[in-house]
Amino acid sequence: MRKHFPERTIQRLLLYYRYLNFMLQQGTKMISSRGLADLLEIMDSQVRKDLSYFGKLGKRGAGYDILELRNKIAEILGIKSKKNICIVGMGNLGSALSAYKGFEELGFNISLVFDVSEQKVGHKIKGQICSNYSDLLKLIKENSIKIAILTVPANSAQETALALEKSGIKAILNFTPVKLTLSKAVKIRNVDLALELKTLSFFTED
Amino acid sequence: MRKHFPERTIQRLLLYYRYLNFMLQQGTKMISSRGLADLLEIMDSQVRKDLSYFGKLGKRGAGYDILELRNKIAEILGIKSKKNICIVGMGNLGSALSAYKGFEELGFNISLVFDVSEQKVGHKIKGQICSNYSDLLKLIKENSIKIAILTVPANSAQETALALEKSGIKAILNFTPVKLTLSKAVKIRNVDLALELKTLSFFTED
Repeated sequence: MRKHFPERTIQRLLLYYRYLNFMLQQGTKMISSRGLADLLEIMDSQVRKDLSYFGKLGKRGAGYDILELRNKIAEILGIKSKKNICIVGMGNLGSALSAYKGFEELGFNISLVFDVSEQKVGHKIKGQICSNYSDLLKLIKENSIKIAILTVPANSAQETALALEKSGIKAILNFTPVKLTLSKAVKIRNVDLALELKTLSFFTED
Repeated sequence: MRKHFPERTIQRLLLYYRYLNFMLQQGTKMISSRGLADLLEIMDSQVRKDLSYFGKLGKRGAGYDILELRNKIAEILGIKSKKNICIVGMGNLGSALSAYKGFEELGFNISLVFDVSEQKVGHKIKGQICSNYSDLLKLIKENSIKIAILTVPANSAQETALALEKSGIKAILNFTPVKLTLSKAVKIRNVDLALELKTLSFFTED
């Protein structure tokens, strides 16, 4: 069922989850749809629509029970279940991401990291032993990993992506500037950091 | 004038720029609007509309001269002019970004990096001497830096963002999961890596 949520709904649900968690830590117990809407800067009718997926949760006038709502969202989104992921390309960005705590907080476990460099393979990088890229197919299959973070140089991005697809990867977070061409069975999200920065910079022009 | 391009148009223009550059390197000289549209997976009418901002460029039937179009886009978007930026928070992600080549390719120069840690201040991290966070206001003003990358821990994000605004920063690329509250004079883009990965992971569910 989860699959049928639109992507934007999923992103909003994840944001609700994060804010609700934060409020629980602060000791807050109830919140109105307006309160949640204000936090996300969206309309409260949108919040009510999103949360209506979960059946009757809010009490008219009293708002939502934060703990109940948080747990419901976690359950629907499968946040509790740990997911193993791999990172391919242990340059600066790959190494940084392998130590990035934000992934762990949302239930990810980085179980494999790969590189081609002899200086890296077999050595610990930020606490992870680096595997040899030549074992990619075997190791990803053996460990049934479905999600990969791609941080290789641009000129080997497409080739690596094809190897990932072959090894059974179903989702790739692509940090290379290359538009990957894979079958529809693999879902790709592109994170283009330089493009984000460049877009932003236009608003600082005189 | 640049300011009035919609954000999405700017992002497409940057992508055109990148692909055109790539094709030049491959020795290709001409491209049709359809050719560009296919690369970006958008409609060719969209490409023609975007490129019409630049006046008469294409020749009916022959398509666009890649070199001419590339230079025109670079000029309009100010890609040639180097822009100084700073990074605040030299943890794993901040350090990685300070060495990230993608920024340089799009005309950015990381001229200052900041941290609070005594172990880092005054030392080189990935080739950058780390400045003391307590000098942030002074150094950013002196160097007229307008763009900052924010990679501090979540619990000091808002406070740091306020200091950045005070020091004259006009654009922040925010890697923290915190929704920053600043005046409208500061443009913010949020890059939430964990959220990207989580959204992606829903499409690998059974």
